[in-house]
Amino acid sequence: MIHLNDINLAYKKVKGFAHVTPLLSSSRINRIIGAEIYFKAENFQKVGAFKFRGAINALSIIKESSDIKEVVTHSSGNHAQALALASKILGLKAYIVMPENSPEVKINAVKEYGGEIIFCKPTLQAREDSAQKVIEQTGAEFIHPYNNYRIIAGQGTCALEALSQINFTPDYVIAPVGGGGLLSGTAIAVKETNKNIRVFGAEPKNADDAYKSFKAGYIIPQTNPNTIADGLRTSLGDKTFNIITNYVDDILLCSEKNIINAMSLIYESLKIVIEPSAAVPLAGIIENNEHFKEKKIIVILSGGNIDIKNFNWHAE
Amino acid sequence: MIHLNDINLAYKKVKGFAHVTPLLSSSRINRIIGAEIYFKAENFQKVGAFKFRGAINALSIIKESSDIKEVVTHSSGNHAQALALASKILGLKAYIVMPENSPEVKINAVKEYGGEIIFCKPTLQAREDSAQKVIEQTGAEFIHPYNNYRIIAGQGTCALEALSQINFTPDYVIAPVGGGGLLSGTAIAVKETNKNIRVFGAEPKNADDAYKSFKAGYIIPQTNPNTIADGLRTSLGDKTFNIITNYVDDILLCSEKNIINAMSLIYESLKIVIEPSAAVPLAGIIENNEHFKEKKIIVILSGGNIDIKNFNWHAE
Repeated sequence: MIHLNDINLAYKKVKGFAHVTPLLSSSRINRIIGAEIYFKAENFQKVGAFKFRGAINALSIIKESSDIKEVVTHSSGNHAQALALASKILGLKAYIVMPENSPEVKINAVKEYGGEIIFCKPTLQAREDSAQKVIEQTGAEFIHPYNNYRIIAGQGTCALEALSQINFTPDYVIAPVGGGGLLSGTAIAVKETNKNIRVFGAEPKNADDAYKSFKAGYIIPQTNPNTIADGLRTSLGDKTFNIITNYVDDILLCSEKNIINAMSLIYESLKIVIEPSAAVPLAGIIENNEHFKEKKIIVILSGGNIDIKNFNWHAE
Repeated sequence: MIHLNDINLAYKKVKGFAHVTPLLSSSRINRIIGAEIYFKAENFQKVGAFKFRGAINALSIIKESSDIKEVVTHSSGNHAQALALASKILGLKAYIVMPENSPEVKINAVKEYGGEIIFCKPTLQAREDSAQKVIEQTGAEFIHPYNNYRIIAGQGTCALEALSQINFTPDYVIAPVGGGGLLSGTAIAVKETNKNIRVFGAEPKNADDAYKSFKAGYIIPQTNPNTIADGLRTSLGDKTFNIITNYVDDILLCSEKNIINAMSLIYESLKIVIEPSAAVPLAGIIENNEHFKEKKIIVILSGGNIDIKNFNWHAE
């Protein structure tokens, strides 16, 4: 287990490398929702997502405390880019196992950051086998995208930073939940700072494994997620499940329609680019609007990595 | 005619009401273009566009120097929203003549800012007639969207502010050109500060009236513009043409394809939402890439008002 102290230590490491991201608000969104919302804009973080915080923390600790020079992970998402860039910055080598059908934009991003890609068949088994092979051949250290305390402590620095950017006590802090790294870190950072602040996760109805696991009291893996929020299709790990069970107050669900509505609101009012997963907390607020009337809420916008080809632009 | 002094005076008025917008850069964009580009992010300005600067300057002067309590304009774009909000802030009343087929999102925006909308047939003649009728009936002062020195001085504060945010001399300042208000104000602000900085306009090939007029030496009105950059479909006015002729070094043209390319680069790398017109200067740089190698360039991102319905979102 980790605690606030670990997140404070992580922040000392993260601060030297990561951006301090702005906390944004929009009077139009506040008027429409009837609440006071502060958006922690991790889309402006390095690699365009909060994942950089966890990666740079984990690799900094490895560099300081061991002779390990190589790391490996399997991911086609933001964690892959984050690990590649953090490795480059710290002079380590990163192997990234990616499914051979990964979108080109994600492959190119990892390459740009200097990661060495190992392609595998697009199954979880093939990913794990390929990563295992890299570990055996090179001695590289495996860095799990979320079920890793150093990663979780790094992600927790985002909420810590947000709390330092305001001079009032929020009623809620809400983060999206996929594998649970961000939500776990957020929950420890917030609850051990002030247990009266309520911490919610937010998840698409169509990928509601965290909600179901939270309610059941044991891990129910995700099967067949069908959501636009592609960063939230993963299942909880045992470490993140345990933290979420102990620290999180509740998990909000939302429809695909409200994810699109929330994205539209953020694009049109805040004028920033976010990925669909980042819209899920606001979608959860929209879906449970009564609950949040006149409350002060910090929403963590997890990232802004979109493939512009997913926009079908057309003139009026 | 107006000069730098008028823009300095305008900035004193504008500063109290407008946001100081950030000057952003992206190492990825700089690497791809091979130049050092600083983006003045007027998408974060009030009403989401530089137009607020001109409107608040013009109305502040009217309020201080006359008994006029009502203003009128014909516009379905950012100027309409800017005039409505500036009027609300200063306690004036704004009549906005809009074509009856204006997009709902634009009608709602003007209403939200408290403007009174008068609908007309979608022709220039009908717009002008309707505005004239409002003037006759109410005594409201007509505020042209760009062919007005107070508006031009207000728009010039954007470049002035950008120059104050850097501690080096840029090689170029580039602004999009539609009616020419922004480019005129920019050119005076920059050239009268330092005549060695080159000022370029940027315009879609498919709406190249400013380019043609600049080369011909007389105003050639725009006919049949067919560009995604809907803010740049208008023709120059006599005041803006005269300033552009005297102060601007050249006008860059760009294809529709490069406007989309530039938009993609900005969305994916800067993580900010801009409207197509705002992408035109970067599109002009892409189209004339050799010219800008290793140069320091300020690009004015004119605004970020998009109708999210123009995005056809789809999951991977």
